[in-house]
Amino acid sequence: MNVLITAGGTSEKIDEVRTISNMSTGRLGSLIADSFLKRNDMSVTYICPKGASLPQNSRAKIFFIDSVQSLQATLNTALREQLFDAAVHSMAVSDYSVKYSVPSDDLSDFIAAHLQTCKTPLNDAEKLSAQIHAAMLLYNNEQKNPKKISSEIDHLLLCLEKTPKIISIFKKQQPNTILVGFKLLVDTEASQLLLAAKRLMETNHCDFVLANDLTHIQGTQHEAILLDTNHNTQFMTTKEEIADRIADSVIKKARGNQK
Amino acid sequence: MNVLITAGGTSEKIDEVRTISNMSTGRLGSLIADSFLKRNDMSVTYICPKGASLPQNSRAKIFFIDSVQSLQATLNTALREQLFDAAVHSMAVSDYSVKYSVPSDDLSDFIAAHLQTCKTPLNDAEKLSAQIHAAMLLYNNEQKNPKKISSEIDHLLLCLEKTPKIISIFKKQQPNTILVGFKLLVDTEASQLLLAAKRLMETNHCDFVLANDLTHIQGTQHEAILLDTNHNTQFMTTKEEIADRIADSVIKKARGNQK
Repeated sequence: MNVLITAGGTSEKIDEVRTISNMSTGRLGSLIADSFLKRNDMSVTYICPKGASLPQNSRAKIFFIDSVQSLQATLNTALREQLFDAAVHSMAVSDYSVKYSVPSDDLSDFIAAHLQTCKTPLNDAEKLSAQIHAAMLLYNNEQKNPKKISSEIDHLLLCLEKTPKIISIFKKQQPNTILVGFKLLVDTEASQLLLAAKRLMETNHCDFVLANDLTHIQGTQHEAILLDTNHNTQFMTTKEEIADRIADSVIKKARGNQK
Repeated sequence: MNVLITAGGTSEKIDEVRTISNMSTGRLGSLIADSFLKRNDMSVTYICPKGASLPQNSRAKIFFIDSVQSLQATLNTALREQLFDAAVHSMAVSDYSVKYSVPSDDLSDFIAAHLQTCKTPLNDAEKLSAQIHAAMLLYNNEQKNPKKISSEIDHLLLCLEKTPKIISIFKKQQPNTILVGFKLLVDTEASQLLLAAKRLMETNHCDFVLANDLTHIQGTQHEAILLDTNHNTQFMTTKEEIADRIADSVIKKARGNQK
């Protein structure tokens, strides 16, 4: 069985020395890789950023990435070159990349000039807001981002834009792969978390989704719910248990598919 | 001799799962610590974030920090409890922390409403820009930042504000400590880099400043200039050489001070 695992968090550059990063050690992903590899006839491709936890088992083939763009390229290559029976996408992928950075007073000047040019009527709140918004999105086209942002700006604005949804790549390229998605929320009611996990499952055709809440992850304790397409749920309380249950469930489903 | 060394980069939270981080492995800082510790009668306190390079010598006393705030607290405690003969501040400290995050259209609505309330005249560009800027800075007071920002916003704005200058702490608390500051620029002419290093030296009463340019740091190669208060310069080309020269220069100055 051939398994693709992503782990850790991606980073997006603000400038040459600063990044926006998703906090994730990759510990759970490395345990999932090891859980697969301790069984017979398993091959694991492991994609993570430098500094993330790595599988202990030396048979994992490891590829390093940093940004969403490099993750996308690495995944596309892997999915073109090999057929995967399963993909476990535990990586915390940046939802946003940096469109531009600007001192707040420079952006204010730019918006003011734009409002004057457009002769926006002050009495129409909706049109006024739309023109302010248009100016914010226009700004990028006319400016070059510095290699290192000065440290002497009182207030700096970063404009971020949505990155492509990486999770959609797996089933698009390999519709028969068993896909495990991950949903992490923070301090959310269990019913809301399950609802979000079901939405992720439906939108991205996941076969399983691991739903967890950051407030219930501390040290070795890691509460999580594994959801399948029949809306069956399994509850777990440690990273080791999560890793084994994901590997068990994926292997069981793969064998069912073969029958 | 008692030496305080900071290394690696700090991180500022955007929400519970995302940070803005300064990229720095802490490798140079760890080599500086080891260069001091391989000599007689040296004690090193080493402050860095988790995941940074650590000194190989086990005699280094290590303290972990994450944000500028935690760095400040840890430094204040260390400087209150012990007298340091020297402080080598190689850490890449976040210049900005997150004041608020907001969907770009929500901020546009807020600015539009503010302009209407203030009855800002559209024909006065300067006043208009000032009111737009005032609204941007006002925004924070009326909003609560979410625990995890939704991934479904098209354009997200982050408003960042300057953090306190950490380097000023050392000499304020211990005026007799020998202070080594670091200036990193990106793709800058050597004369401009030296000028920036001199400014850092004067503003913060550094005894030495290491000036380097990111474009001349690759693998084991690390070009740098060590500047002293007499504007003497030493050129180096590897991290090991930088570490030894800093330790040598600091120890020589400390012995000179004792005479």
